[in-house]
Amino acid sequence: MEETQGRTEISELGEFGLIKYLTKNFELQNVTSKVGVGDDAAVLELSGKQTVVTTDLLMEGIHFDLTYVPLRHLGYKAIVVNLSDVYAMNAEPQQVTVSIGISNRFSLEALHELYEGIHHACEHYKVDLVGGDTSSSISGLVISITAIGLVDENKITLRSTAKEHDLICVSGDLGGAYLGLQILEREKRLFLEDPNIQPNLEDQQYIIGRQLKPEARNDVIELLEKLDVLPTSMIDISDGLSSDLLHICTQSNVGCAVYEEKIPISEEAYQQAIKFNLDPVTSALNGGEDYELLFTIKQSDFDKIKDHPDFSVIGHITDASLGTKLITKENNIHDLTAQGWNAFKKNQ
Amino acid sequence: MEETQGRTEISELGEFGLIKYLTKNFELQNVTSKVGVGDDAAVLELSGKQTVVTTDLLMEGIHFDLTYVPLRHLGYKAIVVNLSDVYAMNAEPQQVTVSIGISNRFSLEALHELYEGIHHACEHYKVDLVGGDTSSSISGLVISITAIGLVDENKITLRSTAKEHDLICVSGDLGGAYLGLQILEREKRLFLEDPNIQPNLEDQQYIIGRQLKPEARNDVIELLEKLDVLPTSMIDISDGLSSDLLHICTQSNVGCAVYEEKIPISEEAYQQAIKFNLDPVTSALNGGEDYELLFTIKQSDFDKIKDHPDFSVIGHITDASLGTKLITKENNIHDLTAQGWNAFKKNQ
Repeated sequence: MEETQGRTEISELGEFGLIKYLTKNFELQNVTSKVGVGDDAAVLELSGKQTVVTTDLLMEGIHFDLTYVPLRHLGYKAIVVNLSDVYAMNAEPQQVTVSIGISNRFSLEALHELYEGIHHACEHYKVDLVGGDTSSSISGLVISITAIGLVDENKITLRSTAKEHDLICVSGDLGGAYLGLQILEREKRLFLEDPNIQPNLEDQQYIIGRQLKPEARNDVIELLEKLDVLPTSMIDISDGLSSDLLHICTQSNVGCAVYEEKIPISEEAYQQAIKFNLDPVTSALNGGEDYELLFTIKQSDFDKIKDHPDFSVIGHITDASLGTKLITKENNIHDLTAQGWNAFKKNQ
Repeated sequence: MEETQGRTEISELGEFGLIKYLTKNFELQNVTSKVGVGDDAAVLELSGKQTVVTTDLLMEGIHFDLTYVPLRHLGYKAIVVNLSDVYAMNAEPQQVTVSIGISNRFSLEALHELYEGIHHACEHYKVDLVGGDTSSSISGLVISITAIGLVDENKITLRSTAKEHDLICVSGDLGGAYLGLQILEREKRLFLEDPNIQPNLEDQQYIIGRQLKPEARNDVIELLEKLDVLPTSMIDISDGLSSDLLHICTQSNVGCAVYEEKIPISEEAYQQAIKFNLDPVTSALNGGEDYELLFTIKQSDFDKIKDHPDFSVIGHITDASLGTKLITKENNIHDLTAQGWNAFKKNQ
């Protein structure tokens, strides 16, 4: 029943192409809908402040592996990844709804653990759980979260408003979450080969924590406010620096020049990449799931942030005709390409 | 990993018990959160009007069977069931977000059909699709929808505000969607036995339509406004009249008396129940998925609605001590019990 004439594989479009394809006929009808599909969150002018709404669907076997992800951490992370989108709009999260689909493989105690993590995140980020749905699932665990936030109209940071000469900045460091995942996957393989083996994760606590219990950068939002810096565009890094910067460039109709040597990588992530025979910079560019904030600022704001250890200025925005470029340490120029994690290539 | 000490089966609690259990520690933290979990939708005071938010998770094999549900209808219905919750708050839907999880069994053309249905519903009900997420699924199709609506603060109709002596009203007729489903299930069985058989559904177009392409009763909301009737409580009938009326009674801390002979049943549904050796009234009480509105009004409003063909007054609200009762045609009194469709008993 799901086939008509012809057949186009979804993997041919990729996630963003698919969203674009599926939503291209939807025109906004209400004056309350200011920004629809295509940014980190939708903007609704409900009156006074602007309301932002964002949603994520997390599927077992695609987004998480319960072999090594404790349910408490999963619940926490599920909230965090949504709030990260709210912060990327420069908004303050207010409410979340949480829906879960569960098979009879899960006991009440298991769900309790999941909701402990959700509760913990709600407390930490001061958001209210205000709704949701629960359902059976014939196979794995499904988590669907919607988050709502508020922001002053003149402070919204879209993806589409970066301008030529703006500086490209990123918070924290990158690649850690991806390398943490590689360790967990390796330990899983070892465990499957020999269930008596004990995982030794002590040397990689930071990057494993980046994978299992990421935080959304509300502190960065507060800091930017304190420094009186309003980003000209912003996005959170969920798919990887390359992929997410390309979103800004495409939607702002600009190019970019990113300097490899400026990309922030933690010592632990760097060492772990070397151990895995991976390029640390590639891990930082394409790893994803770091939930740092990637934003552009006016050059005139440079002095306000340049000395802050939490920010790295990694390049600048160029005219669209110059393309999206990565300048290596050896001064070679490469095209920046999105090799981010693609939900439609995995497990298919 | 999902087991700790002991194990409580989720089916022991049922859906509502589970929601209550999981959310009991979540206290509202923001002044913008007026009503959280527990009604048809959450109420957020974002300023001026109140915003309502509701969400539903639809899982293949649990909520729908693609053997006989065309994807276009599924998309339409997925929106409708959410909007029905918004109308049940007496609110006007504004936006929806739609997330889907899909296996590689689905082609782009199939998803196009699904989104055609979604689009059609958005146009018909004048709501904007403003966000969503798409993901792979290792098994069936998953659809998660969040709907947002607006309502004047003094017009919100909660489940918790019915008062003794109020009249219990229902729009349209009941049981049709359930009986339509029984026909579709029968035809599926016949088809599986003999794939050459042609289904003959022509005599049951109305009730099959009630199952496959339900509408949300925005016309009822408009009509009540025109008649100057503000319900004292309201809920949409998704689980069945019994189950949903019990929600009103429990949350309003009242009892009820419902008269069997007053329950509206279409001629087609009635005849089909007889053919299936089912009690038409039981089908109407427990069938669910009719998406009619169940509401209570002050006795003083009775004259305003009594002659309207779209409304049936089926009973009245009593003191809690009198319990929740069904009075049969033979004047016997039975306890009204929730035998509505339970997502956690199905397929487990």
